[in-house]
Amino acid sequence: MKVNGRLYRSIWLEEDGKVGIIDQRFLPHRFVLEWINSASHMQIAIKEMHLRGAIVIGVSGAYGVYLAAKESEGNIERFNELVEKVRSARPTAVNLSWAVERVLSRIKMEDAGRWDDVVELCREEANKIWEEELLRSKRIGEVGVKIIEEVFKRKQDTVQILTHCNAGWLACVDYGTATAPIYEAYARGIPVHVWVDETRPRNQGARLTAWELLNQGISHTIIADNTGGLLMQRGMVDLVIVGADRVSRRGDVANKIGTYLKALAARDNGVPFYVALPSSTFDLSLCNGLDEIPIEERDPDEVRFIQGLTEEGEIKRVLLTPRDSSALNYAFDVTPFNLITGLITEKGIIPAREDAIVGLLKEDV
Amino acid sequence: MKVNGRLYRSIWLEEDGKVGIIDQRFLPHRFVLEWINSASHMQIAIKEMHLRGAIVIGVSGAYGVYLAAKESEGNIERFNELVEKVRSARPTAVNLSWAVERVLSRIKMEDAGRWDDVVELCREEANKIWEEELLRSKRIGEVGVKIIEEVFKRKQDTVQILTHCNAGWLACVDYGTATAPIYEAYARGIPVHVWVDETRPRNQGARLTAWELLNQGISHTIIADNTGGLLMQRGMVDLVIVGADRVSRRGDVANKIGTYLKALAARDNGVPFYVALPSSTFDLSLCNGLDEIPIEERDPDEVRFIQGLTEEGEIKRVLLTPRDSSALNYAFDVTPFNLITGLITEKGIIPAREDAIVGLLKEDV
Repeated sequence: MKVNGRLYRSIWLEEDGKVGIIDQRFLPHRFVLEWINSASHMQIAIKEMHLRGAIVIGVSGAYGVYLAAKESEGNIERFNELVEKVRSARPTAVNLSWAVERVLSRIKMEDAGRWDDVVELCREEANKIWEEELLRSKRIGEVGVKIIEEVFKRKQDTVQILTHCNAGWLACVDYGTATAPIYEAYARGIPVHVWVDETRPRNQGARLTAWELLNQGISHTIIADNTGGLLMQRGMVDLVIVGADRVSRRGDVANKIGTYLKALAARDNGVPFYVALPSSTFDLSLCNGLDEIPIEERDPDEVRFIQGLTEEGEIKRVLLTPRDSSALNYAFDVTPFNLITGLITEKGIIPAREDAIVGLLKEDV
Repeated sequence: MKVNGRLYRSIWLEEDGKVGIIDQRFLPHRFVLEWINSASHMQIAIKEMHLRGAIVIGVSGAYGVYLAAKESEGNIERFNELVEKVRSARPTAVNLSWAVERVLSRIKMEDAGRWDDVVELCREEANKIWEEELLRSKRIGEVGVKIIEEVFKRKQDTVQILTHCNAGWLACVDYGTATAPIYEAYARGIPVHVWVDETRPRNQGARLTAWELLNQGISHTIIADNTGGLLMQRGMVDLVIVGADRVSRRGDVANKIGTYLKALAARDNGVPFYVALPSSTFDLSLCNGLDEIPIEERDPDEVRFIQGLTEEGEIKRVLLTPRDSSALNYAFDVTPFNLITGLITEKGIIPAREDAIVGLLKEDV
């Protein structure tokens, strides 16, 4: 997608073997690129959230193995050590260990002779993961755009879409998940307007989704997370599309905290509520998502403090609450299957129902 | 209620005829008192929101008329001019013009001879309004505490109450509306814990409600507005109690934006949802609150910027969004009557139903 009119991806391999990323920590106030040339540097970038979002974290892990291979120059012990550093950068990120493992198994499978071949295999496999994720997001857009097209055909006016958090291209290699159908609709000339939930406490909506849409030239308006209910009561929302962090076998969706409240308002006002996700987000080992999906509890200071740009142009953190008041910071909630109109995946749109989900995944076998 | 261990009201008349207020603009970071000795000063205090909250604004208006009387020293033209200044300080605040009118009609009724008597009548009537509001809030607490007592009897453990925005003592003369039953429960030794919605965009929960509870020594935890749904799903909320800005004849409640989303979550999880209000908040001229209650749209910069305390101890405003992204800032939403368990008023608890509301108000006749 575009930044200041130029095309970017959230992560990419340069010809000289360095990995380029967008350092998301300073967005939307500063657009900072970073070039990463060692596994330790990649570990820091993941750990300190220069990049975030399940898919990007996975791809960074894959490139981290490639950097480890280059750097260790045939010293297997050193290589393993560096790989472990990368793998453990974010302990709860499932995609990270999955991608690291996939690159490692490629080396084992091919049993390369010279170390240069090992490095080359790592590069190839990481690039393959990168490309697969890119195409998967693009495909989610092509599948999901049909829903937006239908609303436009009926309404013959701007399609009003509400989204929560950032399931955008910054969280993927490109296109995003929840945003992919929106970008595709825009590319096809369908008039869209996006209501961007600011998404407290980390404000990924106000900071990242709004920034993405602004750079792409897509009409959007930032709202407090409290506002979506009123907009739906007033008929100002045609569709809700959100992303997902994990989806259970029966279709319960864990996503950024607050998603559940928007799903309740959507049902109460007859607004279709869609979840866009790559099929790798399904976790068939879980049935009842409300009981079984673990919810990450994060630092309460993310609620108590916030970062913003001062009038002097400095990025500063300010305290929002009484210093001695405590806060609680759950990162996700679970939206039960019965509030979900449909799941938009790269393989098609299905209802949030066990038979449909199991059926969709069986096609892989 | 207490601040740093000492008793305060949000507004009071000093013996020397000055009006004392808590300047709420710097809370929770700085506790600033202000003494007001002229009608023009009172106009500024109301207009620039040194104080906010319907009831306090009304009482300030009444004292504003008293200050105008003192100041004008019998010059009727000057008096009327100053009264108009006070009355127009916040054009949409119904309580303000109501209280100003009430003091004026007292003067007319009694037809005082000397100007000193006029000043004295204004002082008396303003003090009367002050005392009535104080007692009304206290009474809401005594009525509403029964609900908390019932939960405690059943549960025999800390009663978990969620509230939204600040319907606390800072918004009234004392006690508050939504908080009044909580303060009363605490005074009676019932263990309570309050989940405080931060209440974006103006953060009245994180700034004011949390500060009130902290000073009173009541256990509380600040949460992002997104969090209440998950807490209810997990059985961590026994009761929701919120305030109201206007309630229609059939029981639809206009309150701070986001209230509706919490009411939906309460219904979905079987959590009782109460609204606490003085009976003056009913507006029998409106039936369907969703269509008929006008919703104030405020400056979008309240969403785009936020004020907080820097590490250096300065109160600063920071930008949260891309500079060129727009925002929308509705201040209230409407919770339909069918989501409300009961209305806690100074005259008793009633269902949100036309016959009950009309019946309650008939008692006044």
